[in-house]
Amino acid sequence: MHYVEIVAMLVVVQYLFFIYQVGRARGRYGVKAPAVTGHERFERAYRVQMNTLELMVALLPALFVAARFWPATWVAAIGVVYLIGRFIYWRAYISAPSSRGLGFGLSMLPVMALLTMALAGAVLR
Amino acid sequence: MHYVEIVAMLVVVQYLFFIYQVGRARGRYGVKAPAVTGHERFERAYRVQMNTLELMVALLPALFVAARFWPATWVAAIGVVYLIGRFIYWRAYISAPSSRGLGFGLSMLPVMALLTMALAGAVLR
Amino acid sequence: MHYVEIVAMLVVVQYLFFIYQVGRARGRYGVKAPAVTGHERFERAYRVQMNTLELMVALLPALFVAARFWPATWVAAIGVVYLIGRFIYWRAYISAPSSRGLGFGLSMLPVMALLTMALAGAVLR
Repeated sequence: MHYVEIVAMLVVVQYLFFIYQVGRARGRYGVKAPAVTGHERFERAYRVQMNTLELMVALLPALFVAARFWPATWVAAIGVVYLIGRFIYWRAYISAPSSRGLGFGLSMLPVMALLTMALAGAVLR
Repeated sequence: MHYVEIVAMLVVVQYLFFIYQVGRARGRYGVKAPAVTGHERFERAYRVQMNTLELMVALLPALFVAARFWPATWVAAIGVVYLIGRFIYWRAYISAPSSRGLGFGLSMLPVMALLTMALAGAVLR
Repeated sequence: MHYVEIVAMLVVVQYLFFIYQVGRARGRYGVKAPAVTGHERFERAYRVQMNTLELMVALLPALFVAARFWPATWVAAIGVVYLIGRFIYWRAYISAPSSRGLGFGLSMLPVMALLTMALAGAVLR
């Protein structure tokens, strides 16, 4: 089992799930492409996707670089915290954007942790 | 010849080409930064760039992870389908956003395929 | 010292710094999520983050692939030019979007250079 690769791919799967939710919201609330505004519910789903994209492009490089210097199980475990954090973020943002703090923190902290580990590994080893 | 790396870099080149198209549309239709709305034609070019960005961040990790477990020629060939799909998507979206289905499907399917191969490889090997 | 990995992680750190600036601008100019428009100053900070995201997803794959074929110090040095270019871009865009040319060029050229090196390496070696 290649834990880091599995977690990395689950991060991508979760992101594609959020993209799928945006497509559904586009149909349900009648927001035609190329518009990305027009209905609050659509905009929430779109912001979850965009925010996840914004964070994922930081997480994945940090995850792979950290895995060059640290045990795969540690790195994968931190990636799992990100996955849970993003799931909480999505649930919260959809129902009330102002309640997104916990989920955001739980997905941002793993990015910071992996980035620190990757930098420390690249400098010291 | 490193086929996977070549295809990965062509994916990036194609994406930069779409960014260049947005820059041209910005000038041609008089949409000044930081605005990203204001003219339908500009918005279409911008949505092609954004949608390609959104998909590319899923494709590239899946491509590189799949290449750790599967023959490079298979992985590269699936990447080429993505490149063709994105090209069709761009041509269709620019002329009529509602006709973007085929190109979208042809570029989304390779992402799904590579993701499945990467996950299967990471779990089973 | 793993120079390429260090530069890659600094690219991510700089990007997270731009995200942090957007969060601050959101509070300061009263732009509530999920809105991403409403105040010129907020929109400038947001465009810097988005443009950096747009370029970083091209830079990082090109950086890592180039590093498979070329000396790490060369690849890392080109990455440092990108970092400086992005910093200039941020300073310029915040004060006057129309003055963003130099910073944009200095961060786009390294992407082109690394992409060319990566493609040349993948084809010839």
